[in-house]
Amino acid sequence: MSQRAGIVKDWISDSIDNDDLALVKQLQTNILPKRSIQASQDQILITIGTQNSLYLLARLLGDKETRLAVEEPGYPDVRNIFSSHGAIIVPINVDCQGIEINDKLKSCDYVYVTPGHQVPTNVTMPMQRRQALLHAAEKYDFVIIEDDYESEINVLSQASPSLKSLDTNGRVIYIGSLSKSLSPGLRLGYMVADTPLIDAARALRRLMYRHPPANNQRTCALFISLGYYDAYLRKLRKCYQQRWTTMRQALMNHLPQCITTATVGGSAFWLKLPNHTDCEQFTAVARDIGVLVEPGTIHFSRFQKDHRRYIRLGYSAIDSDKIELGIKKLAQLLKDKAQPDICTNKYD
Amino acid sequence: MSQRAGIVKDWISDSIDNDDLALVKQLQTNILPKRSIQASQDQILITIGTQNSLYLLARLLGDKETRLAVEEPGYPDVRNIFSSHGAIIVPINVDCQGIEINDKLKSCDYVYVTPGHQVPTNVTMPMQRRQALLHAAEKYDFVIIEDDYESEINVLSQASPSLKSLDTNGRVIYIGSLSKSLSPGLRLGYMVADTPLIDAARALRRLMYRHPPANNQRTCALFISLGYYDAYLRKLRKCYQQRWTTMRQALMNHLPQCITTATVGGSAFWLKLPNHTDCEQFTAVARDIGVLVEPGTIHFSRFQKDHRRYIRLGYSAIDSDKIELGIKKLAQLLKDKAQPDICTNKYD
Repeated sequence: MSQRAGIVKDWISDSIDNDDLALVKQLQTNILPKRSIQASQDQILITIGTQNSLYLLARLLGDKETRLAVEEPGYPDVRNIFSSHGAIIVPINVDCQGIEINDKLKSCDYVYVTPGHQVPTNVTMPMQRRQALLHAAEKYDFVIIEDDYESEINVLSQASPSLKSLDTNGRVIYIGSLSKSLSPGLRLGYMVADTPLIDAARALRRLMYRHPPANNQRTCALFISLGYYDAYLRKLRKCYQQRWTTMRQALMNHLPQCITTATVGGSAFWLKLPNHTDCEQFTAVARDIGVLVEPGTIHFSRFQKDHRRYIRLGYSAIDSDKIELGIKKLAQLLKDKAQPDICTNKYD
Repeated sequence: MSQRAGIVKDWISDSIDNDDLALVKQLQTNILPKRSIQASQDQILITIGTQNSLYLLARLLGDKETRLAVEEPGYPDVRNIFSSHGAIIVPINVDCQGIEINDKLKSCDYVYVTPGHQVPTNVTMPMQRRQALLHAAEKYDFVIIEDDYESEINVLSQASPSLKSLDTNGRVIYIGSLSKSLSPGLRLGYMVADTPLIDAARALRRLMYRHPPANNQRTCALFISLGYYDAYLRKLRKCYQQRWTTMRQALMNHLPQCITTATVGGSAFWLKLPNHTDCEQFTAVARDIGVLVEPGTIHFSRFQKDHRRYIRLGYSAIDSDKIELGIKKLAQLLKDKAQPDICTNKYD
């Protein structure tokens, strides 16, 4: 059989509950070592992206007794997924170092965090906070779900070590994604945890959809093993670095009053609009002048009037030379006191 | 932008909860019309295969109050998926026309059937039984889940119309698959139902994994729209026809006593071994002489000693000229009274 026919034969069949071993090998030898993670084959499960990893975990771990701590503000779908299975959501405030370590964690069974770049604030958890979180996990007996979101997109610093790599007590479930960096449309992610949990997740995945499409698994394995993935990441980083730096400078020049906290990377900026400004209305008016921003309200689990003041600005799909003009336009909108639509007292 | 870049741009992004409209269009204009089904865009959801369609339905419809009728013998995973969500499984016997229409259906909310080629017996439900089942659905107020398994693989007759196409009362949820005919490794299926159910399944799918990989959706859409799918199906049918006919003749020549019922197509045959023969032990001994068969026990929901006598023989991956030899070997095994391993009284 030719090599080509051999490769096709590897992915056309129903793999039942198996992963493509070529992709597992690339995770073990290329992707996970970048995050200082060593894992055996039976500690890895390939999924249809981070969303799906979280769904599998919620179905296995989230029931009416389960208390899940989440970041506030944080990723809305982790709240939706776990609460749809009956889990109790415990929001914990985020400061400039990520999730706060406080007494609320005492009562929690699981703590979901995005330490690489926190969703949505983009702050990176420093080493000290990572150690403190791992220490708290041991002290309060909880398990950390580490969503290693955009850890590869760093501009001002190297990526921090993953919590999983720092964990010596088996208290971290690690979730990573290939689709975020490569292409969100591909829907490929993975989970690293102790074998009994991976076994249970694999059995559940078999019932849910058997396995992620085998052709995509094999294509990604080849893409990584032939060196294209690393080359692509370098290109992506260079591009993101330029856009991130441009947007940061533009924000410092035109909207310094809106900057919330210093970040070192990530694909977006989290801004706080001036008092009396409503993000939903601001978003609508900005759209009318050709600037797309994302209102931040959805990232908060509880309604407080102050939460209506946040927006998130992504840059990954905008050419560098268009960034400053957009920020200037937003600054002009805020300056223009004749814009009654964006300034309202209705939440005060 | 070039046409090529345009196509890539269509699938690299996160589609959130959307399907690829090019694939939806191919389902509407090519795939579903073959089953006489007309459906609007909002009555169609693309899934990661039939298994996933069933999982979505079980999560939406299956709880502790729900009674689901299933075929006995039948597809084991439909029992596993629905019972894992708390549904009560009601097994209904299958005869030579498919699921029996009897009083047990009265108490059921949903009835899962594989009328194209029943899993595992391969019998095709004739028109009269289809009409009777639809009539019972109206009379007893249940909804039919039609898994149109292998309806395209017919040898002695044309495919019967789908239940969905015969239904005038909105009582059929239709499940189809592209991965079965094209490649099980691809994991692509679809569901056709009334808009409110599709909306709910789409919202659940968004939480579960957002959407099936967009590149595979688009690739399949192109494959179908450019005529390759129909050409491939013709080739597949020709190949299956030859193998099916060869195996049927070999069974009539060498194992006539094991034939259970007449079938008109499907990718397998369902045999009943002689009295005192245990299918698990028979499978092991057959494997030792190079013939792979599938024990049938798993398809029964309840244990009865007689259920240990069934095996399923697939042919789709075996060259025609190897089929008769394999059947001869199986016949020889059964004749060989010196094989104590396959003849046991322990279940009698």
